[in-house]
Amino acid sequence: MGGNNKPIGVFDSGVGGLTVVKELFRYLPAEEIVYFGDTARVPYGTKSRGTVTRFAFESTGFLMDIGIKMLVIACNTVSASSLKEIKANFDIPVQGVIHPGAGAAVKATKNKKIGVIGTERTISSGAYVEAIRALDESIEIYSKACPLFVPLVEEGWLDTEVTYLTAIEYLEPLKREGIDTLVLACTHYPLLKGTIRHIMGKNITLIDSAMETAKAVKETLKSLGLERKTDSPPSHRFYVSDNPEKFVRVGERFLNKKINSIEKIDIEG
Amino acid sequence: MGGNNKPIGVFDSGVGGLTVVKELFRYLPAEEIVYFGDTARVPYGTKSRGTVTRFAFESTGFLMDIGIKMLVIACNTVSASSLKEIKANFDIPVQGVIHPGAGAAVKATKNKKIGVIGTERTISSGAYVEAIRALDESIEIYSKACPLFVPLVEEGWLDTEVTYLTAIEYLEPLKREGIDTLVLACTHYPLLKGTIRHIMGKNITLIDSAMETAKAVKETLKSLGLERKTDSPPSHRFYVSDNPEKFVRVGERFLNKKINSIEKIDIEG
Repeated sequence: MGGNNKPIGVFDSGVGGLTVVKELFRYLPAEEIVYFGDTARVPYGTKSRGTVTRFAFESTGFLMDIGIKMLVIACNTVSASSLKEIKANFDIPVQGVIHPGAGAAVKATKNKKIGVIGTERTISSGAYVEAIRALDESIEIYSKACPLFVPLVEEGWLDTEVTYLTAIEYLEPLKREGIDTLVLACTHYPLLKGTIRHIMGKNITLIDSAMETAKAVKETLKSLGLERKTDSPPSHRFYVSDNPEKFVRVGERFLNKKINSIEKIDIEG
Repeated sequence: MGGNNKPIGVFDSGVGGLTVVKELFRYLPAEEIVYFGDTARVPYGTKSRGTVTRFAFESTGFLMDIGIKMLVIACNTVSASSLKEIKANFDIPVQGVIHPGAGAAVKATKNKKIGVIGTERTISSGAYVEAIRALDESIEIYSKACPLFVPLVEEGWLDTEVTYLTAIEYLEPLKREGIDTLVLACTHYPLLKGTIRHIMGKNITLIDSAMETAKAVKETLKSLGLERKTDSPPSHRFYVSDNPEKFVRVGERFLNKKINSIEKIDIEG
């Protein structure tokens, strides 16, 4: 297919998609990544479907122009509202973050009660409910938007009393419903795993969409014979639409790794 | 001048500028307001200066096309980073929110120690420090970015323990410095006045930029002879670049009044 040595393109509304990149590094250490974070227009989670789709087309177009062999939409909001349109309009394998998380949750649950937490837009889209029900109609799903989690993570307040009390406010209703599985349906949320685990208890399975997505990408590349075939070490590139300094500062916390190549680009067209 | 019966144009990155509109209603009840909230690209406070200026030019252009007699930049971030450029490029009286707040703070302080709280961008711009120092070089200024205040207000958590603890974290360092005056340098913050007052104590003067700006607009209209001269009741129009439903829901809380005329427009050009 000739595209094997092209990078995997990943985009997100901002820095959150780096949790997916972190897992791609872990599951696909030989692959090269090109990342675009639309930091000029972050957050997407409170915006309308039409606006989010327009932004997503611009991001996809940018990565296609660079030349990628596969596209990963590392953003729950975009995956929830615009995955079909992107698949229909761009000629490339596309992986969103909803189906991997939904599939893993269905496999994990024993009492058939699953909780889903995410941004306002991800939750109101009903995309996780739809994806889970498509796999097992009998599952009960309890969803909750947690709009303060993203700003808390971006502020670096991962383990403060404020974060703990905010999480209690959001998570207690789900806990009361007796869920045994909770989907972290926003790429920022894995950084709050400790707090969420503390509140929800040890017996609840937390589903990390980022990790499940990386596993799905690995499978797709294998099934399409698109794995990178060279011994040279991979190099990665990061692009943002604004404020590269802040992206690097916050992003290195997400990635647990140095970001060496960062560039600001104009995305609005 | 012929423009007397044109509306006052007001723009903000989102819903926050409505605290200025509320004060304009109070100080200038006969005037008509046209408001634009750039909700597709909110928040501005974490974005770079160049990006914010580009967005501000687009918002100003939109209001100029409608036809306004005066422009109010009801956004600290834009006032801090782009006021000069807007004044230089558009032929209309322009009022930002920085100088009224800075002036009122200088008048209010007795011990010459002023605190300023706002978004990351407003604080890092140093605009308040500059504006205050221009009036009185001997004043000591203590600034603090409070990035979680805007999402807390938008979530409607005005009076919760989370908000209280967040505010303590942000405000305690200012309190320790012994300031006697605190400038609320973000249009969202007046909704947190109760919490801020509770933490800072009764002896501190809180400067509400929104109120000071409305007073300044009133003076400017008077000095230019641009007051509205008709007995018909004013009608107001609100435009947003995304999600009018959410704007109305949150905005009516800011305005303490019904929003009857709302329209979604495309702003990117």
